[in-house]
Amino acid sequence: MTAQIAPSAYVEDTADRDFAAAIFDALRALTSDGEGITRLAYSELESAALDLVEAEARQLGFATERDAGANLIITLEGGDPSLPFLACGSHLDSVPQGGNFDGAAGVIAGLTVLAHFKREGFRPQRTIKIYALRGEESARFGRAYMGSSALFGKLSAADLASVDANGETLAQAMASVGIAMAPIEKGERLLDPAQVFAWLELHIEQGPVLVARKLPVGIVTGIRGNIRHAKVECLGEAGHSGAVPRWLRRDALFAVAELITHLDRHWRTMLERGRDLVITCGVIGTDPKTHALARIPEKVQFSFEVRSQSQETLEAFYDLFLSECALISEERDVEFKLDRRIDSAPAVLDQGWIKRLEKAAGDLELPCEDIPSGAGHDAAVFANVGIPAAMLFVRNEHGSHNPKEAMTIDDFIAGVSVLRTAIKDALE
Amino acid sequence: MTAQIAPSAYVEDTADRDFAAAIFDALRALTSDGEGITRLAYSELESAALDLVEAEARQLGFATERDAGANLIITLEGGDPSLPFLACGSHLDSVPQGGNFDGAAGVIAGLTVLAHFKREGFRPQRTIKIYALRGEESARFGRAYMGSSALFGKLSAADLASVDANGETLAQAMASVGIAMAPIEKGERLLDPAQVFAWLELHIEQGPVLVARKLPVGIVTGIRGNIRHAKVECLGEAGHSGAVPRWLRRDALFAVAELITHLDRHWRTMLERGRDLVITCGVIGTDPKTHALARIPEKVQFSFEVRSQSQETLEAFYDLFLSECALISEERDVEFKLDRRIDSAPAVLDQGWIKRLEKAAGDLELPCEDIPSGAGHDAAVFANVGIPAAMLFVRNEHGSHNPKEAMTIDDFIAGVSVLRTAIKDALE
Repeated sequence: MTAQIAPSAYVEDTADRDFAAAIFDALRALTSDGEGITRLAYSELESAALDLVEAEARQLGFATERDAGANLIITLEGGDPSLPFLACGSHLDSVPQGGNFDGAAGVIAGLTVLAHFKREGFRPQRTIKIYALRGEESARFGRAYMGSSALFGKLSAADLASVDANGETLAQAMASVGIAMAPIEKGERLLDPAQVFAWLELHIEQGPVLVARKLPVGIVTGIRGNIRHAKVECLGEAGHSGAVPRWLRRDALFAVAELITHLDRHWRTMLERGRDLVITCGVIGTDPKTHALARIPEKVQFSFEVRSQSQETLEAFYDLFLSECALISEERDVEFKLDRRIDSAPAVLDQGWIKRLEKAAGDLELPCEDIPSGAGHDAAVFANVGIPAAMLFVRNEHGSHNPKEAMTIDDFIAGVSVLRTAIKDALE
Repeated sequence: MTAQIAPSAYVEDTADRDFAAAIFDALRALTSDGEGITRLAYSELESAALDLVEAEARQLGFATERDAGANLIITLEGGDPSLPFLACGSHLDSVPQGGNFDGAAGVIAGLTVLAHFKREGFRPQRTIKIYALRGEESARFGRAYMGSSALFGKLSAADLASVDANGETLAQAMASVGIAMAPIEKGERLLDPAQVFAWLELHIEQGPVLVARKLPVGIVTGIRGNIRHAKVECLGEAGHSGAVPRWLRRDALFAVAELITHLDRHWRTMLERGRDLVITCGVIGTDPKTHALARIPEKVQFSFEVRSQSQETLEAFYDLFLSECALISEERDVEFKLDRRIDSAPAVLDQGWIKRLEKAAGDLELPCEDIPSGAGHDAAVFANVGIPAAMLFVRNEHGSHNPKEAMTIDDFIAGVSVLRTAIKDALE
């Protein structure tokens, strides 16, 4: 049986819609916590979610297995199994009281594509494997992308020793779901990147761009890296607010306010010149033990983060940040003390696959937009071991990591259609 | 016996220096707390400090008494006791772990002037009364200027019901040092302003201006009033730091940073145009329950204070503040929520006495500078009931309200000499 889908009529594919909606509903019912849904990394509920998706796949007659990281793999064997396989999927774990779509959408999308191919009778030469990864969220252990990192020997001893709120280590939690830990502890590669033709991942957008643009899907251009300081201190001098005139002030807050205002101006300028950039100071505070309405604050603590798809842009903005700190220090007789700089490299996505996804959207007469991924994803882990990787965002309201995540099934099917069309284009 | 002091040789007056230094030392020894000194309002240690100064005064043969507010009065009776008397002094209480000079300097200065007059054999027509006031510091009950306010019926029922850290009310504490509370509770005037010719108060500077200017004394031009908001909230929208581009951000911190930076620019402009103004945001913070490095802050809380000697300048700057809040709200799609506006009116000091103090400094060949008082003082209470009031600041390092207050005895004697010369000029 082959569903008859005209390019412009992707939303009419009720078979795909009904299939996916049923799995989303079952997953929500299984892992609801009353407020949202909870499927913590390497927990029983995460395992239950993998089992549920596996059962759906087996019902359609697909072969399933668990890999050496206890991730679920669903396979549509190709005509020539010796060819590197196409990998597609995302993760099934969630933050506590999260939403039903962050991660799960990418797994269900992959399975929906396979089901569609089966209905169509499409069998490519190249094998397709759908991955339901574990442990992408950092909420439990502080470490993200554990399920994919484990496959490429990228979990350090420190990572494996990190503990959750109950004192259980990541290594213990991984062993508890049946993973043989010795190879992982040795940092062995459990999956050879040369065996993987590509990694494709559909994900809900975690920002508001597609909603604001009124577009169902976006093609991800790259995954932003970042440079961060968790704690920057500005040190000035305390004083009686009424008794110290402007020319003698060493006000730490006025200095930080000027710094942030200058960073904002530079940000705007760099955007106008076409750079990819976001700047955030998520945390600020005077010292609650000493601050007061009538006391010039001698210390203000804040966090700094710059994100970009380009390492050059990251470094250029970071230089500006240091330069502004130096300038304002001198002008206002304050001192900026920076803690350890933390780096996360941008991930470059595959231009061939980006073009293929764009063409697929065009063929489907789907308006869509190029959009950077600000958050990290398993796709970055695959990309950074040299596997051509690409991502597709689906419109979603209210961000992610909360029960209010809101993706419509129509938008999801639009994304699935783009993904399927691009895969078919590549494998036909 | 008349000390022979040439105008330029005020620092050579070893009799005044030895007299004052001995009292400062005795007071420090009596009320040391190990770290600094502690003489809380209406406490036994405050009473002990009054007793110590009273004993010194009686030893010199001066009449002493306690007024209806249990403040100490030391009298040099004039030739015509029916004339309104000249009042001079300050307070003897301190904050916990404070310094030895905030308040006490003004009391000891008055007594040193009387002692000097006695040595000289100078007896004016007008009576001089030195006040050692109680309860100027707000540290114990949250209310300041209690000792002077009580004299003019200015303590409200709410003031009298305010409690210290141990739950004792101000009324109970006042009664405990022997004050008859009924007239104070009725708001009666215990001192008729018409009986007071002038109020003169010497005080250490609580800011760094005289140190920076290398000047021993300053003539106070007025006491700054203020307009305050203890809590202003800026409300924007939370979001993933990587996933929300600049054009969709409603970042509460970037908005507050811009607001403070604009206030600083307006401040500078108004100073350049000759206005008296200080601006402080002593407190700022994102919400520790929700803030994070990678989360755009949806709420920033901060305090706002503007101080000036001119009510017009206060209102003008406050209007600018509201206008900037409105502008930035609109530009950045955030909201500013202001709590109750709190006002404290500026106190105008007496121009005749300011000129007399300036002339005295000139006669003594003492360089000095006009300087506003940013902190409040008992002098404001006297001024605001219509008594001509004036103040003199003495150079002091490290601000006040801490054990590191540092006034040299030479600078103190310079201030005493100016005070004495001005009084003699007015009463001779």
